[in-house]
Amino acid sequence: MRVVIALGGNALLRRGEPMTARAQRENVRKAAEAMAPIGREHQLVISHGNGPQVGLLALQAASYGDVEPYPLDVLGAQTEGMIGYMIEQELGNILPFEVPFATMLSMTEVDRDDPAFSNPTKFIGPVYSEEEATKLAAARGWTVKRDGDKFRRVVASPKPKRIFQIRPVKWLLEKGTIVICTGGGGIPTMYDGNGKLRGIEAVIDKDLASSLLARELAADFFIMATDAEAVYINYGTPVQRAIKRSNPAELRKFDFPAGSMGPKVEAACEFAELTGKSAAIGALTDLERILRGEAGTTVTSSADALEYWPPRP
Amino acid sequence: MRVVIALGGNALLRRGEPMTARAQRENVRKAAEAMAPIGREHQLVISHGNGPQVGLLALQAASYGDVEPYPLDVLGAQTEGMIGYMIEQELGNILPFEVPFATMLSMTEVDRDDPAFSNPTKFIGPVYSEEEATKLAAARGWTVKRDGDKFRRVVASPKPKRIFQIRPVKWLLEKGTIVICTGGGGIPTMYDGNGKLRGIEAVIDKDLASSLLARELAADFFIMATDAEAVYINYGTPVQRAIKRSNPAELRKFDFPAGSMGPKVEAACEFAELTGKSAAIGALTDLERILRGEAGTTVTSSADALEYWPPRP
Repeated sequence: MRVVIALGGNALLRRGEPMTARAQRENVRKAAEAMAPIGREHQLVISHGNGPQVGLLALQAASYGDVEPYPLDVLGAQTEGMIGYMIEQELGNILPFEVPFATMLSMTEVDRDDPAFSNPTKFIGPVYSEEEATKLAAARGWTVKRDGDKFRRVVASPKPKRIFQIRPVKWLLEKGTIVICTGGGGIPTMYDGNGKLRGIEAVIDKDLASSLLARELAADFFIMATDAEAVYINYGTPVQRAIKRSNPAELRKFDFPAGSMGPKVEAACEFAELTGKSAAIGALTDLERILRGEAGTTVTSSADALEYWPPRP
Repeated sequence: MRVVIALGGNALLRRGEPMTARAQRENVRKAAEAMAPIGREHQLVISHGNGPQVGLLALQAASYGDVEPYPLDVLGAQTEGMIGYMIEQELGNILPFEVPFATMLSMTEVDRDDPAFSNPTKFIGPVYSEEEATKLAAARGWTVKRDGDKFRRVVASPKPKRIFQIRPVKWLLEKGTIVICTGGGGIPTMYDGNGKLRGIEAVIDKDLASSLLARELAADFFIMATDAEAVYINYGTPVQRAIKRSNPAELRKFDFPAGSMGPKVEAACEFAELTGKSAAIGALTDLERILRGEAGTTVTSSADALEYWPPRP
């Protein structure tokens, strides 16, 4: 079976944790332990988030004034290198030496007419006073928005349209290689008026990009690993229910939070709908059970009714 | 023919130039133009230096005090992502869309008993006063040495022993993929006492690592592209001569500068000696002519006498 796993940002760095290399590596090690059994049995492709890491690199660059900060495509490429390295090394230390690995840089194309460009919503980098923010917006062409009592830069989050490295990833999978790619949703790129591919100042949702990756690779199963055990309705209320199995039509009747579960549910629905195969959302530590349908929320294209996990005693 | 090109640090960033993303990209574009004709005709693997880029990331991290600076293996992984991305994008914009590309993260193993560890010589990161340097050395376990009237951290530059990603690189080359790998000599790693691979605080010479890469890939030709037109003897004196063709035995009679031409000549000699094929050192802009023996210094395993280029009029 060909399995694509998208590691959520929280799987790599817990909220509030210091963003040291050591803390990240320890989380990556736990993720590697959870993924290793799947790597032994199946063709495995791993993608991952990069939000906090891009944020840190942007902060570091901003605090060192001598060189103008690198744009988001370049920072994205840096984090693909850093996080991919840690995943490859830690998983490589668990699996037999003979298993080949490849961490491949990925570029994702977005559409120049994507509506996200007319309404940027993703906060990026440090907070500024209104005065500083206005100055930076003028000097660097940024869009800035209020974030609490401060101001921050915002960028667009356009939909992923194409991932360029699909063929090499397929060739490597056919040889049994475990491939790490499309980190952070892939480096954001767009064709300019002269038909040249250019990096752009945007962020791409890693779950939507991973769904596209899984579809293009003809994956048999697509799992988004996060810190939630399942997709819930009425989350945090006395009547909350964890969804065990559902389909795109049923799931789209609900309204999931835009910043967290929303894109994951949409990514799962797109995969199930367009491939007829199953996607799942669940906890990193449950990976093996999610694959067997014994944990997490499975999204299928079938017309079965919505099914819930029994409430916890 | 299978060709490995190692891009020198100066091919990516000219001395004294600001280290902006824009400046780096413009240099990468020129390098891409020089490499494109070879990419059209041959199997092509590209490696590259990363010294100034690692230096900048270390400076940025040091100026942002909140998170302890990332170790050199992680910074190396970041630069492999960043530089590889620029090379892949710029070369991809020149060659036909159908040509597949892969930028692959590379780890290089070094020997725990390498004599370099007992005498670290590579300066890394910012300069400090003697007092600061002493404090940092105690706090972080660094070795520091005098650099002019200031102090800096020094790390070891052990010999590359193994590059782990050889099999995937070969599989991709067989499919006609242009592969970018072993940037900065590869991420420095070593097996610990428990047989686990770990990143280490060291730098690996990119020319020696590229020579190892070229040998392991059974390359037919290995070129080190730099800003010098050839290897010179008596460089900068009235009797300087540019070497056209030589062999390891002849070249090893000379004493080339340790920081620049020395490792390149050694890397070329190792390749020629161990494979019976040719290596060359020359200017980036002469790549095609170097491949035909019409420019640069070619090192072969044959016992032919030393041959010089005619002196410039």
